Amino acid sequence: MARGPRERVAVSGIRIDGSTRMYGIVGDPIVQVKSPELYCELFAAAGMNAVMLPMHVLPDRFDAAMPALMGIHNLDGLLVTVPYKARAVAFADCLGPTASRIQALNALRREADGTWSGDMFDGAGFVRAAGHKGQVLKGRRVAMFGAGGAGSAIGCELAAAGVESLSIIDLQRERAQALAQTLRREFPSCKCDAVDAVPPGMNMIVNASTVGMRADDGLPGELGALDAGTLVGDVIVTEKPTVLVRHAIDRGCQYVNGRDMLRGQSDALMSFFGRG
Amino acid sequence: MARGPRERVAVSGIRIDGSTRMYGIVGDPIVQVKSPELYCELFAAAGMNAVMLPMHVLPDRFDAAMPALMGIHNLDGLLVTVPYKARAVAFADCLGPTASRIQALNALRREADGTWSGDMFDGAGFVRAAGHKGQVLKGRRVAMFGAGGAGSAIGCELAAAGVESLSIIDLQRERAQALAQTLRREFPSCKCDAVDAVPPGMNMIVNASTVGMRADDGLPGELGALDAGTLVGDVIVTEKPTVLVRHAIDRGCQYVNGRDMLRGQSDALMSFFGRG
Repeated sequence: MARGPRERVAVSGIRIDGSTRMYGIVGDPIVQVKSPELYCELFAAAGMNAVMLPMHVLPDRFDAAMPALMGIHNLDGLLVTVPYKARAVAFADCLGPTASRIQALNALRREADGTWSGDMFDGAGFVRAAGHKGQVLKGRRVAMFGAGGAGSAIGCELAAAGVESLSIIDLQRERAQALAQTLRREFPSCKCDAVDAVPPGMNMIVNASTVGMRADDGLPGELGALDAGTLVGDVIVTEKPTVLVRHAIDRGCQYVNGRDMLRGQSDALMSFFGRG
Repeated sequence: MARGPRERVAVSGIRIDGSTRMYGIVGDPIVQVKSPELYCELFAAAGMNAVMLPMHVLPDRFDAAMPALMGIHNLDGLLVTVPYKARAVAFADCLGPTASRIQALNALRREADGTWSGDMFDGAGFVRAAGHKGQVLKGRRVAMFGAGGAGSAIGCELAAAGVESLSIIDLQRERAQALAQTLRREFPSCKCDAVDAVPPGMNMIVNASTVGMRADDGLPGELGALDAGTLVGDVIVTEKPTVLVRHAIDRGCQYVNGRDMLRGQSDALMSFFGRG
């Protein structure tokens, strides 16, 4: 029961009635997610009677919750966030190209025939956000923390965007190796490797791990020297800059943060949901 | 996907973010329910970061949907409407007095220890709404259509309020008989019987059946002559008056409609939800 002195400010024309269609974002934890505000706004702006709700599902409930949620007749789509992007694949009847390549998804929609399609938009959102900031990705030498759902998606889109090399760091070394192998197979011209630390000579750093989600998190790892030409990306969506983004700002680097990424993928996601 | 020319008007300060707590109303059909609008307003007015969503669950999904919904960590309560008020009893760890008497409920809340309590507020809402209209129930001779969840709840509260007699009409005769028997046992001073048609001499008519939910529904049955002293009640919540309420208005009768009843029970429900 959330009841408190907090002031609620009406920023949008949300109205909920019996005909309202529901979308949810499923994750654990959930209070940090920004998608409900963003998509409620976008749905309202599109004239849709629909809302995006945070849905906090614990790991031992996930397998039962997903089919039940998808069985709610007025629930038309789900976003999936940490830690469920890979587990969610099992609930899609059909996977889009990126989701099928990396076996992780962040969006599911109900089709007209009642089946569910899923795809992964995290990477596309990241690349689009970098483009919005005027950043060229082609030829970059990238070190990336995190080879989970978000890291796989971003790695895939970075390779597709023509980065020169991608050095992947994950506490689960096998996970980094598996991703590097997949990317080498799919994008032979990109040098992809699993590494233990940021190699010298990088001009792009990406955090696709969950480091930064907790207020007391520091940097995802040792970064070495960053000059102003280094592009820093961080998937973590926070009110205040993460330690990594703060680090980038202090060194005069351009950066793409989690909010930029969310906004970057919203066009693609709105059209994904709008087709259902 | 509900997308259309309909104008969305912001009537309240609803804002949804990652900390929003969720409540749902589960039923089939669902588009007719008015609780989302009403409780979204009431939650906002109470300073709660919470919304009430319509949740359309089909009968073959109900048994899987309920535990899954109750397992969503930020879902704090459910309203239950037609046709699930009796089936929902199986999902409560603890029943309030009315729910346990009639084995039907319309509200469930998560307790601090994670268990779920349920109770039935339909009858209390009806009695309170009649009181708001200055109507005395004590001594009334009542004919009631419908012995399902709503009928049982209203019958129970009418008997408790001291009506003289209650004649119950239901297409499922055994259901009417079972309710009459329960009420006779619980309220020996009230004359309760299952009947096939409205007996002569009634001065109160209640529709607690689903007749009126469809636009082409007529009266729930033959009513006989109604004079201006007859109180008419109808549980159906509609934009325009039901045929029954129109019938009452045309004869100068006082009436309690479904919206009056919803409003009548909202205080009780807000305090039920607020205690969780």
